[in-house]
Amino acid sequence: MIRIGILGYGNLGRGVELAVRQNPDIELKAVFTRRNPESLTLMTAGVPVYNVADMDAHKGDIDVLVICGGSATDLPEMTKKYAKDFCVIDSFDTHARIPEHYAAVDRAAKEGGNVALISCGWDPGMFSLLRLYGNCILPNGVDYTFWGKGVSQGHSDAIRRIKGVKNGKQYTVPVPAALEAVRNGETPELTTREKHTRVCYVVPEEGADLARIENEIKTMPNYFADYDTTVNFISEEEFLRDHSGLPHGGSVFRIGSTGADGEHRHVIEYKIQLDSNPEFTASVLLAFARAIARLKAEGVTGCKTVFDIAPAYLSPLSGEEIRAHML
Amino acid sequence: MIRIGILGYGNLGRGVELAVRQNPDIELKAVFTRRNPESLTLMTAGVPVYNVADMDAHKGDIDVLVICGGSATDLPEMTKKYAKDFCVIDSFDTHARIPEHYAAVDRAAKEGGNVALISCGWDPGMFSLLRLYGNCILPNGVDYTFWGKGVSQGHSDAIRRIKGVKNGKQYTVPVPAALEAVRNGETPELTTREKHTRVCYVVPEEGADLARIENEIKTMPNYFADYDTTVNFISEEEFLRDHSGLPHGGSVFRIGSTGADGEHRHVIEYKIQLDSNPEFTASVLLAFARAIARLKAEGVTGCKTVFDIAPAYLSPLSGEEIRAHML
Repeated sequence: MIRIGILGYGNLGRGVELAVRQNPDIELKAVFTRRNPESLTLMTAGVPVYNVADMDAHKGDIDVLVICGGSATDLPEMTKKYAKDFCVIDSFDTHARIPEHYAAVDRAAKEGGNVALISCGWDPGMFSLLRLYGNCILPNGVDYTFWGKGVSQGHSDAIRRIKGVKNGKQYTVPVPAALEAVRNGETPELTTREKHTRVCYVVPEEGADLARIENEIKTMPNYFADYDTTVNFISEEEFLRDHSGLPHGGSVFRIGSTGADGEHRHVIEYKIQLDSNPEFTASVLLAFARAIARLKAEGVTGCKTVFDIAPAYLSPLSGEEIRAHML
Repeated sequence: MIRIGILGYGNLGRGVELAVRQNPDIELKAVFTRRNPESLTLMTAGVPVYNVADMDAHKGDIDVLVICGGSATDLPEMTKKYAKDFCVIDSFDTHARIPEHYAAVDRAAKEGGNVALISCGWDPGMFSLLRLYGNCILPNGVDYTFWGKGVSQGHSDAIRRIKGVKNGKQYTVPVPAALEAVRNGETPELTTREKHTRVCYVVPEEGADLARIENEIKTMPNYFADYDTTVNFISEEEFLRDHSGLPHGGSVFRIGSTGADGEHRHVIEYKIQLDSNPEFTASVLLAFARAIARLKAEGVTGCKTVFDIAPAYLSPLSGEEIRAHML
């Protein structure tokens, strides 16, 4: 049995807890929280909740610690900190800062004799893998990644920080014509605006200035200014009824050519449609947690990414079984 | 530079030769043939052609031998034979016989201190990888594989063996309603007949009995009897104009659920559309040939499959580069 600990009990942490039930070779040993442990009610009977201050006492009980903190602020600190005492995995997704995060975690993991795996999930994660495979098997080609239709947590948070907004959610939506062109094997040059639109559902506070809110959203730099953005004001009831889920998805494409003169075109698409972004991400994390436990048993140390994991390490089945049934 | 040899100069061998041009770290050192070497004209200037009888003399010049023989009859003999003296890769695709092929090649490769990789391409190959990833990240789910629309060489060969058939080609075509249902996340139980149809284009010899040919095709056990098959008789001109290519493709699906009660559904699709089946297969083989050369340099021996190769080994880029640009 692979003994898992969860650090952070939000959407992702709960997703990991549920995913454990689908993996008979993995058991949940403990949940760690920065909150008062007694304030948490788990879905799994008999699993203890501890405060992060007490993590040291449980080093020997955990094979892999799944770090479920918020990416932007928590993970750069948490993963490197805990990699000294635990094998760890995270879903760090600030693409531009991955190299520095990798270096810091690698140092800590090697110091502690542990294996760490960063930036796991679907993007970064499965989408990264498909980009790498696509680039390697079709070197003469072009990449496209489309996200959505789905809820962007970062953009939803940005909306909710605006004065007069009671609640809000943002959907990232691929532009249908762009998606269609790429799927047909065309290789258009697309600007940011031509690839995705942003659709917002906002519950305003009573008496709020709707025109100002709409303008603040649409002109917000980095988040919305470069996109065609639609803002819909709705009631709290409608919001709870239609927008309480966290669906997401997207497609990674590699379009490449082969032949004596590039005359043969090939289109690869990896497409996912997810009812629950955090539960899917959690499921990916657990499969890679299995690989970490195996690498640790082999004496490997240091920081890894999804690129470094031979796919067979993700499966609970033996090499013989996967060759016989999946090859 | 990784020095490649090609054994067998048919469609696949020529595809490998062309793929070498797209991989600056790979060079083609020699082509080996069972035919008279002087009867072959390569597309690459300066590359020697040798008879297979003389392979021993070139052991030291080749890092990876890409075996491009016909799968059903050649590969079970060839791959295990040459794995003693070379690192080898093949595209063995008789799924039911993979375990015995693996065992024989593993023995030979270990005896010779070489690395071998079998059953590489797209199915088996990339489709196998996607089946494995899908099963590991969504353990509670169902698999579907659809092939086509594309030319099946085995079925085309079977048609051409019928008396009175001058030329023939067979397309495997997914049933649109079945494909649509799966893509929508439904999990229908589908019989063989409900998943694919078979469409044949046949050039009859002059005066041949068309009704007999059509009947022989449609009732052929294993190949056609379990499918809805359409037979179109066409002229030689039409055949050459419209059916001289080797396009193929297909989709691998994993449909799985997560949540406290399986309430969230996730659909993963890996879809490829290929203008040239042999050239795409060749491109996959070359990426994995790169991995073989690296494993050999690390002192690894024995038989591998795509499941055993960490994706980073497929790329000519460094770990640092792929983390910075593809993660």
